[in-house]
Amino acid sequence: MFELGANRYGKSRIRLVTVDRATDQHVLRDLTVDVSLEGDFTAAHVDGDNANVVATDTMKNTVYAFARDHPTGPAEAFGLAVARHFAAYRQVDRAVVTLREHAWTRIPLATGPAPDAFTRSGELTRVAMVAATKSGASVEAGIEDLTVMKTTKSAFTGFERDRYTTLAETDDRIMATKVTALWGYGDTAAEPGFDFDAAFERARGTLLTVLAEHFSPSVQTSIWVMATAMLEAEPAIDWVRMVLPNLHHWTVNLEPFGLDNPGMVYVSTTEPHGLIDATVRRSG
Amino acid sequence: MFELGANRYGKSRIRLVTVDRATDQHVLRDLTVDVSLEGDFTAAHVDGDNANVVATDTMKNTVYAFARDHPTGPAEAFGLAVARHFAAYRQVDRAVVTLREHAWTRIPLATGPAPDAFTRSGELTRVAMVAATKSGASVEAGIEDLTVMKTTKSAFTGFERDRYTTLAETDDRIMATKVTALWGYGDTAAEPGFDFDAAFERARGTLLTVLAEHFSPSVQTSIWVMATAMLEAEPAIDWVRMVLPNLHHWTVNLEPFGLDNPGMVYVSTTEPHGLIDATVRRSG
Amino acid sequence: MFELGANRYGKSRIRLVTVDRATDQHVLRDLTVDVSLEGDFTAAHVDGDNANVVATDTMKNTVYAFARDHPTGPAEAFGLAVARHFAAYRQVDRAVVTLREHAWTRIPLATGPAPDAFTRSGELTRVAMVAATKSGASVEAGIEDLTVMKTTKSAFTGFERDRYTTLAETDDRIMATKVTALWGYGDTAAEPGFDFDAAFERARGTLLTVLAEHFSPSVQTSIWVMATAMLEAEPAIDWVRMVLPNLHHWTVNLEPFGLDNPGMVYVSTTEPHGLIDATVRRSG
Amino acid sequence: MFELGANRYGKSRIRLVTVDRATDQHVLRDLTVDVSLEGDFTAAHVDGDNANVVATDTMKNTVYAFARDHPTGPAEAFGLAVARHFAAYRQVDRAVVTLREHAWTRIPLATGPAPDAFTRSGELTRVAMVAATKSGASVEAGIEDLTVMKTTKSAFTGFERDRYTTLAETDDRIMATKVTALWGYGDTAAEPGFDFDAAFERARGTLLTVLAEHFSPSVQTSIWVMATAMLEAEPAIDWVRMVLPNLHHWTVNLEPFGLDNPGMVYVSTTEPHGLIDATVRRSG
Repeated sequence: MFELGANRYGKSRIRLVTVDRATDQHVLRDLTVDVSLEGDFTAAHVDGDNANVVATDTMKNTVYAFARDHPTGPAEAFGLAVARHFAAYRQVDRAVVTLREHAWTRIPLATGPAPDAFTRSGELTRVAMVAATKSGASVEAGIEDLTVMKTTKSAFTGFERDRYTTLAETDDRIMATKVTALWGYGDTAAEPGFDFDAAFERARGTLLTVLAEHFSPSVQTSIWVMATAMLEAEPAIDWVRMVLPNLHHWTVNLEPFGLDNPGMVYVSTTEPHGLIDATVRRSG
Repeated sequence: MFELGANRYGKSRIRLVTVDRATDQHVLRDLTVDVSLEGDFTAAHVDGDNANVVATDTMKNTVYAFARDHPTGPAEAFGLAVARHFAAYRQVDRAVVTLREHAWTRIPLATGPAPDAFTRSGELTRVAMVAATKSGASVEAGIEDLTVMKTTKSAFTGFERDRYTTLAETDDRIMATKVTALWGYGDTAAEPGFDFDAAFERARGTLLTVLAEHFSPSVQTSIWVMATAMLEAEPAIDWVRMVLPNLHHWTVNLEPFGLDNPGMVYVSTTEPHGLIDATVRRSG
Repeated sequence: MFELGANRYGKSRIRLVTVDRATDQHVLRDLTVDVSLEGDFTAAHVDGDNANVVATDTMKNTVYAFARDHPTGPAEAFGLAVARHFAAYRQVDRAVVTLREHAWTRIPLATGPAPDAFTRSGELTRVAMVAATKSGASVEAGIEDLTVMKTTKSAFTGFERDRYTTLAETDDRIMATKVTALWGYGDTAAEPGFDFDAAFERARGTLLTVLAEHFSPSVQTSIWVMATAMLEAEPAIDWVRMVLPNLHHWTVNLEPFGLDNPGMVYVSTTEPHGLIDATVRRSG
Repeated sequence: MFELGANRYGKSRIRLVTVDRATDQHVLRDLTVDVSLEGDFTAAHVDGDNANVVATDTMKNTVYAFARDHPTGPAEAFGLAVARHFAAYRQVDRAVVTLREHAWTRIPLATGPAPDAFTRSGELTRVAMVAATKSGASVEAGIEDLTVMKTTKSAFTGFERDRYTTLAETDDRIMATKVTALWGYGDTAAEPGFDFDAAFERARGTLLTVLAEHFSPSVQTSIWVMATAMLEAEPAIDWVRMVLPNLHHWTVNLEPFGLDNPGMVYVSTTEPHGLIDATVRRSG
């Protein structure tokens, strides 16, 4: 009467810090790792038979053990190693490893950057998502938690007006958002030698530059403008998806207090917020 | 060179409280509503042309205005009204309205339940997700934030052991999870007269009863057992998806202190956690 | 040139679940425990001398070990045992143990409440704070995370109006708050046999009943009315402190849409919020 | 029988963004402001008489109105203006304004820093707390949310060992903490012309430099070493209080997998955590 549909399982929020002490200039990497498997797990659900089940505790152990041999380097490379390990299990069709990298910055000293002391830089979280099967692998990368604000060069006019529309048109508003961007690399990225750090930096730098420089007639257009620029800047990227909340900043009405407000005083809000989600890809 | 792929936009976290004062026994409903539209929005992205764009501020206004005529009743019915309103716009292909209902309980008094004073009950959040197109509508419902614990009748044995496996088998462990369950109703649910509250209560009640009574050889099997029971209990449900973190409770080793620990003292953890995600549906 | 001022240290967020399996009707207790010590720790700060330092890891171990002998009963009694243990160390002047109890409710079954399956009830968190010195102990208790709403019998009129006042007076508004209440027991509470559960229930019940029944001219007055009622209901309580955010619910203006809004549709907000903090005590 | 004890009230989480557009190089300031008043509010509590009550909504309006005239400059100066305004009310004894400043960094472009586009830098939150009375004012400042890690030069040895101690001594561990530091300025800080930004930068820079360079025998000693250095670096500071969680990083045991772990692979934890709280002040 009933059947199992889509299913996956794994371990989430494996918190992993590695320190490379090969030189006095310690290298620090801080990751939160999720592992997820798909495959022949029907018996585990339907029959209570765990023979095919790789314990999620084992996944955690594996991540820590693999980190022993991959203490540095891009998260994508580490994720590929872990994903391929799990994809090799007979019962696994697809292993997905998601890695969030928390950036740390060397504390600046009079003598230069500290060799062994760091502050966590909260500007953004770098994300990698690696999927491996028996026949191949694919890599996606992205950015989370990047909060940005444009204090001008943002407008919103000419939108549909209906019975429930009260919003005034504006040709100069604050635009603020917390960027979630994810992009897919082509097949070559899973081959040895692909420079994930360079590709990430080109994507990130392009996103920020275009964000700062373009005139935004809407968040939708901003996604298109930023994403196409990223695709132009980095040929290894096939598509870019952005999910951008519109964190509204309302001009405060100071007239009751006998004051004008020429774009000076704003109330910053998070609730409710617009949410714009779009993918841009290469044609054909 | 580039083209727009999947896209949607809307307003999230519209916070709405309605009070029905028709009798002294006030009726309170507390919702967080998200609205999302898909349709002909290519020009908004590619050309900076907002002519087709319904402002997300308008969506917010619409939700509040519609609440004036739907102050009570199941969230699903309110969501259907809002979703159908937006689906009727020429440029909209699909409108999705997601509603999270925060439950409030009347404060018990010597004279009976208070008519106008409530405590927020945090046991679970009831969720509804309604999608409307020009030709029809579909309804999903579910539960979030339901944290449960079984202090026995949970085991985990017979799982795969490899080089990285250290977890001991156990025939009696604590099982704790924070239930996210979502289920899809068949077409009849979108027709007038469907009793969403009764269906929800049957699904919720069955989930909790089976959760309490069954023996769990794994979280995977628990999903199967609970989901099939829900499908049996409520014929209007076509499928059930559950996403269950495994919130591990580890027995504390008290031997260094000269004490035994016969299943008495546990450390409760949330990080890392297993995460099991499976859908069960009617066959054929 | 410099000297050490006030200082304390300890372990926070010790997550502890105990299960009493003495009968088939399992008893579950879920606590988050903080331990904090004050005493002769100057050398630890000034000289880097740890001889007097009880490691916070030892505090954690101690909490788990003591839980072996106190698996059930009020959190206050467990806290007294732990606090007195640490206060007995030669270098400790004062040990403070804070315990937050997360309530679990038996799942209702056709055969009665489940013996071994529970849902976490989010209505409130019960708090206890126990301080012990070489010469005695004191106990405070309280409530956190209790969100309540009155849909009528709340007003706000006659307040000061100045240049910056725009708020209209209202004789009927929604009052919503998330209660934090803390109260101090007299010396007898630290003696054997004091019934912490009964005292808590009297305090909690009185708070809720009065909250529901009284007419509130301001949050300040509500604190006075609730606190004095609690002091009357439970003679063991010396003082009550409440910290109440005023979670504003604004009537939505529906006139632009041709609709009235007779106290039906509200926007629920959390930011910004009023915050009222007052202590009421017995006189003289 | 009962009397009012300590009490205060105000508005919390006023979210304020100001933009100074005097030049093309926009200046952005982002604050979360709390206002709190103490004074003659007994009638408001005991008698339900609001005549002395300044509405918290008025406080919000006042903050926005004052921001019109203080769009830039240190948060402390803005806070002093607001606090003094409220302290001048006849019924107010003390007005406290707390300001948290969220830092934004100009996006770097090929042509230099962007004039009107910013990313929110999450490295730390700058805090100011200003208190004004009818006769004077005082200023405290500080840092929150500064997460730091030392990958060496941290030890923990020679601590007390008792029945419940299992922690091994270590002469080289990771030290990680999320710094909360607050310091009090002397009376001169409330006078015109005090350079709050310079004082903050000296305090912050000293904290970070000493944190990076010193050898830490315990978190307690680290507080002493950092705080005394801050007092030496900035004569306007009278005292420094630090509250430092000890965010433990445990070396993962890789032996079961046939691997050593020479300080390379760590599990990062937040729960439970040590918590060290100490104040250091000038002597006499």
